[in-house]
Amino acid sequence: MLEVGIVGGSGYGAIELIRLLNQHRQVSIKYIFSHSKAGEDIKNSYPHLQDNVKLPFTTLDVENVECDLVFFATPSNVSKHFIAQLLDRNIKVIDLSGDFRIKNPQVYKSYYGEKPAEQTYLNQSNYSLAEWSHVNQKTTNLIANPGCFPTATLLALYPLITNELINHDHIIIDAKTGVSGAGRSLSQNVHYGEVNENLSAYKLGSHKHIPEIEQYLSELTHSNIKVTFTPHLIPMTRGILTTIYVDLSSDVSNQYIHQLFEKTYEDKPFVRIRQLGEFPKTKEVLGSNYCDIGIYVDEERNKAIIVSVIDNLVKGASGQAIQNLNKLYGFKENEGLDLLPVYP
Amino acid sequence: MLEVGIVGGSGYGAIELIRLLNQHRQVSIKYIFSHSKAGEDIKNSYPHLQDNVKLPFTTLDVENVECDLVFFATPSNVSKHFIAQLLDRNIKVIDLSGDFRIKNPQVYKSYYGEKPAEQTYLNQSNYSLAEWSHVNQKTTNLIANPGCFPTATLLALYPLITNELINHDHIIIDAKTGVSGAGRSLSQNVHYGEVNENLSAYKLGSHKHIPEIEQYLSELTHSNIKVTFTPHLIPMTRGILTTIYVDLSSDVSNQYIHQLFEKTYEDKPFVRIRQLGEFPKTKEVLGSNYCDIGIYVDEERNKAIIVSVIDNLVKGASGQAIQNLNKLYGFKENEGLDLLPVYP
Amino acid sequence: MLEVGIVGGSGYGAIELIRLLNQHRQVSIKYIFSHSKAGEDIKNSYPHLQDNVKLPFTTLDVENVECDLVFFATPSNVSKHFIAQLLDRNIKVIDLSGDFRIKNPQVYKSYYGEKPAEQTYLNQSNYSLAEWSHVNQKTTNLIANPGCFPTATLLALYPLITNELINHDHIIIDAKTGVSGAGRSLSQNVHYGEVNENLSAYKLGSHKHIPEIEQYLSELTHSNIKVTFTPHLIPMTRGILTTIYVDLSSDVSNQYIHQLFEKTYEDKPFVRIRQLGEFPKTKEVLGSNYCDIGIYVDEERNKAIIVSVIDNLVKGASGQAIQNLNKLYGFKENEGLDLLPVYP
Amino acid sequence: MLEVGIVGGSGYGAIELIRLLNQHRQVSIKYIFSHSKAGEDIKNSYPHLQDNVKLPFTTLDVENVECDLVFFATPSNVSKHFIAQLLDRNIKVIDLSGDFRIKNPQVYKSYYGEKPAEQTYLNQSNYSLAEWSHVNQKTTNLIANPGCFPTATLLALYPLITNELINHDHIIIDAKTGVSGAGRSLSQNVHYGEVNENLSAYKLGSHKHIPEIEQYLSELTHSNIKVTFTPHLIPMTRGILTTIYVDLSSDVSNQYIHQLFEKTYEDKPFVRIRQLGEFPKTKEVLGSNYCDIGIYVDEERNKAIIVSVIDNLVKGASGQAIQNLNKLYGFKENEGLDLLPVYP
Repeated sequence: MLEVGIVGGSGYGAIELIRLLNQHRQVSIKYIFSHSKAGEDIKNSYPHLQDNVKLPFTTLDVENVECDLVFFATPSNVSKHFIAQLLDRNIKVIDLSGDFRIKNPQVYKSYYGEKPAEQTYLNQSNYSLAEWSHVNQKTTNLIANPGCFPTATLLALYPLITNELINHDHIIIDAKTGVSGAGRSLSQNVHYGEVNENLSAYKLGSHKHIPEIEQYLSELTHSNIKVTFTPHLIPMTRGILTTIYVDLSSDVSNQYIHQLFEKTYEDKPFVRIRQLGEFPKTKEVLGSNYCDIGIYVDEERNKAIIVSVIDNLVKGASGQAIQNLNKLYGFKENEGLDLLPVYP
Repeated sequence: MLEVGIVGGSGYGAIELIRLLNQHRQVSIKYIFSHSKAGEDIKNSYPHLQDNVKLPFTTLDVENVECDLVFFATPSNVSKHFIAQLLDRNIKVIDLSGDFRIKNPQVYKSYYGEKPAEQTYLNQSNYSLAEWSHVNQKTTNLIANPGCFPTATLLALYPLITNELINHDHIIIDAKTGVSGAGRSLSQNVHYGEVNENLSAYKLGSHKHIPEIEQYLSELTHSNIKVTFTPHLIPMTRGILTTIYVDLSSDVSNQYIHQLFEKTYEDKPFVRIRQLGEFPKTKEVLGSNYCDIGIYVDEERNKAIIVSVIDNLVKGASGQAIQNLNKLYGFKENEGLDLLPVYP
Repeated sequence: MLEVGIVGGSGYGAIELIRLLNQHRQVSIKYIFSHSKAGEDIKNSYPHLQDNVKLPFTTLDVENVECDLVFFATPSNVSKHFIAQLLDRNIKVIDLSGDFRIKNPQVYKSYYGEKPAEQTYLNQSNYSLAEWSHVNQKTTNLIANPGCFPTATLLALYPLITNELINHDHIIIDAKTGVSGAGRSLSQNVHYGEVNENLSAYKLGSHKHIPEIEQYLSELTHSNIKVTFTPHLIPMTRGILTTIYVDLSSDVSNQYIHQLFEKTYEDKPFVRIRQLGEFPKTKEVLGSNYCDIGIYVDEERNKAIIVSVIDNLVKGASGQAIQNLNKLYGFKENEGLDLLPVYP
Repeated sequence: MLEVGIVGGSGYGAIELIRLLNQHRQVSIKYIFSHSKAGEDIKNSYPHLQDNVKLPFTTLDVENVECDLVFFATPSNVSKHFIAQLLDRNIKVIDLSGDFRIKNPQVYKSYYGEKPAEQTYLNQSNYSLAEWSHVNQKTTNLIANPGCFPTATLLALYPLITNELINHDHIIIDAKTGVSGAGRSLSQNVHYGEVNENLSAYKLGSHKHIPEIEQYLSELTHSNIKVTFTPHLIPMTRGILTTIYVDLSSDVSNQYIHQLFEKTYEDKPFVRIRQLGEFPKTKEVLGSNYCDIGIYVDEERNKAIIVSVIDNLVKGASGQAIQNLNKLYGFKENEGLDLLPVYP
């Protein structure tokens, strides 16, 4: 039985790890760390876990922690302060925050407004978009789990970009997210009265997930790709939908692109390509680790629209983190993750 | 492996059975019956099941169906037309509809406005509030699965009524339900624009679940109990909360009642009594088979308020149906049902 | 033109006063006071008012303020500190907070946990449930505007209680409110992820509106009435619905009670009695100053259920405050308030 | 007093006309026509209008109707059957449906799938985007009121397109709408359980508003413009937000574009340009006739993003129709429309 700890235990990411690991037959949770709630019973914060989780919140004492792996489900600027000591103690880390995603410290600084992690750990970290990454127990010690928007975006763009089918100058990502992506911390922006029955665009040109998307696409293509990315806040709790507009660089049919997507993902259990003419809705993946993708090609104008949906807390965070753990240790890819969407 | 069929396959109850049975290690779904969609692929109606469910919708051909048990997740007035033939073929039935819940045909008729089932089957049916019923493979062939409101209500009233603590003349049940309880059929009442950001009471004095609650309480007490029951429609998808007001027949403390509830349910894995002063919220059971209960006693005035919550599609329908199946066949009570609530 | 000031300008109550007074032909807003945002432009806090409101937020300088009337749309424990000086300067006050509602300082203290206002002002304040109060420009200087729940409750109980039709020992008020009632201040309880798709009861037996309801009913009947009152938080922004359960003290028909309500309110433009068998929904009064009421009598058991709905920010706060102003100065009762509900 | 009739009286568009005309001092409603509900009392369908609207629903008897103007708040394929007779009787028409918007009958047919109106009336109709159209009582008899998406889109694109600042090949409109845009008719797509907590793109490349947008832009520029337009359904009742992505044809600054928008709309009371860096939210115009616009320029890449919001039932339908009536008859432009947004 693999023993794990979860840092950031009082947040939504941690709670979702707990829900999913409850179904996992090869992992047991040994620690739930929360700085702000150390000593408290978890059911005071999350009464829905009453009796199911006996562990109290504790403080991460990095010199004495003993387990195989630690998940960081924290805001940015936390994990980077613990990484050296954890790796020294041979504890692997899957980091759900942004600390180790951006390789270029200048870029990190300009988007995150904070000092980046030490370069040695940035180099060492494996940005693991689970469908396409290579991680293994021997050589991988630090996984940077992708952000929610990048996950939905990159899975949708992967077949087009790797097959050199699109113009790099016109990649437009119109992203929409449920409110839980902002976490459990209080803020006027996610106060019920301000968000319910309301819809807005935010952080135009400045969202932290922009450099993450650009870095991945640039590495894939050995070029320097810039994207236009606009997130929107939707009055619902869970779900991300991205609508991606691209210019095709050659004359291809709807049929062709559809088959390309189907072939690209035929062995990937969590990516489901919808039949032509059908587009996925966020509720159709709610609570599950699926990423569903729909395709539209305007054949006259050589433009394509790709629509992808995920549950931001599962495939966009905790579910993918467990999928990464499964890959890391060679477990079945869907261990702990074979849950059907909760519908309706 | 137990083989089951599901009738009413295109409705929310059936879809929830499919989601939960997906986690069940001793049951496999052999048939999904839908009269209106026979011949169609299930993923046309429910794209979220793409690839997960390979069965098409078929018509229930009662003379040739071969399986161990059939769930009816249908509106009322369906199952009663098939019951004779299914039982003849030694196929057990768990009926999620109201057809076999009400023993008194006059009462049934006045609330349901339809002809009741044949008396012989009404007699034979086992109304199985899972925590308190007695069913077994040998003698039970027909289970009437309780309605959603009665489940939340009766679990909350059980300790008080069986311990003769309350005045029978003043039982007031103010019930609130999410919209999914009305099913997937179209109606002005559940049209988005009419329900969202809106709140209403409905069917005052005439809801079908009234006689079901009264029959159960009356049987428990060998008396003739009448209740006041008012359902309300809440702008959310899942969840029922009942607020039950009773007059205590003797002078008892908050503490006493709380301990009584804890003791009553100490061996029941799906009923969770909240600590004194804490009241459950519907989201704290969403997607799970739990019924959570909170207690308040106005010691000065000898009045108690019991608050109970369930997910109407799980504990209030499909989850309890599987719990009943588990009891019927002697499986672990939480087989297929050990899912934590989806929070947030 | 009557000149008014609004204290608590950055909250939802103030914003609603501004929206409604924008339609009022005899009142102009001279000041918008906000302690926390003094000096800021109102459109920074409320971009929806861009260009419409030119006033900045200022600090209430009670020694120099010059206007006819001041509205307090503040939390409790604010207005009582300014009342002496404002009345000294011949400025009338309509207080939307609870500071001057409760006449008994002990009761106030036990529910509000704070020191009450000076007794001289408690005595002087006019608790003005607008349909039934008597206020006039000559003798009324301080109006305590009723709370949202008491408004919906008392308008519904008034005909029954004044006609001595109900048993005083069994008045049960099951109240449901949209989230905006909690104001704009941040709190975990009204964080979007915690409230959306969720439903809960809160403050059982301890809500501040309990003594307000009891005081009014007790005064009306010259007796000492206690009620059972349970508020619930509904995942919607605006709206209150109360479901009130009473025992009738004599044998009366549905018809009789209905006519009584119709007659009682025939001259009251903002109270609308629904036809028998019809029950109001909160959206049917949204954005308007109406209180709609539906009636059900269980003639066999001599029990009645009254359902009333209001918009908590209009009839339950700012709208009623303007109605009170209209009565105070002898303006048309619906001046500034003749807006139809926003539907859907 | 101008006398008007409303056709399609049982739909949301008609109800919104009634709400707004209630505030209009120069218009009285003489008829409310509803084919399906003729003879019924309006309060049976819309209890929120109880007592406020005394007119029953009647059938449009086009040979005897006597009034100045008729609004059609109907689905497509209704108004075109009545237009000849109404114009013959010197009754003006403001049509909120799509029947008279598209001048090219082939285009109409391919998007609407129906026979277009007679060419003579298509020629005669004035497509009146209220801020930029020219209508007057003498020569205008038939106004085609713009669709909801085109209104939000065209007001946002107008300054850029008329100043020849954008590349015509890369106009991408990602539009999001609340559910009320689909009207009150029942459909699986707008069933509460299917829409709530869900998000989807729909009608990619085939929405009826595409040719309307293209026709207007093409006329403005005397060219043949094609756009990419994708609508999304948002789980809220009211509100449209469009996010429009364009490539700038020359090197211009954020500042320059912002001033251009401010100047373009300085005399237009219903279009509000937000300060640089601020983007409008749909709730900030809810219930009002405003269109709010925010601007972002990526100066490095010569790309601009324009965000516009409207209330789909007001500025996107009934409000603009009244604004058009005001212009037609020379009334004050905001007569009946000077309502502040309902916030929160």
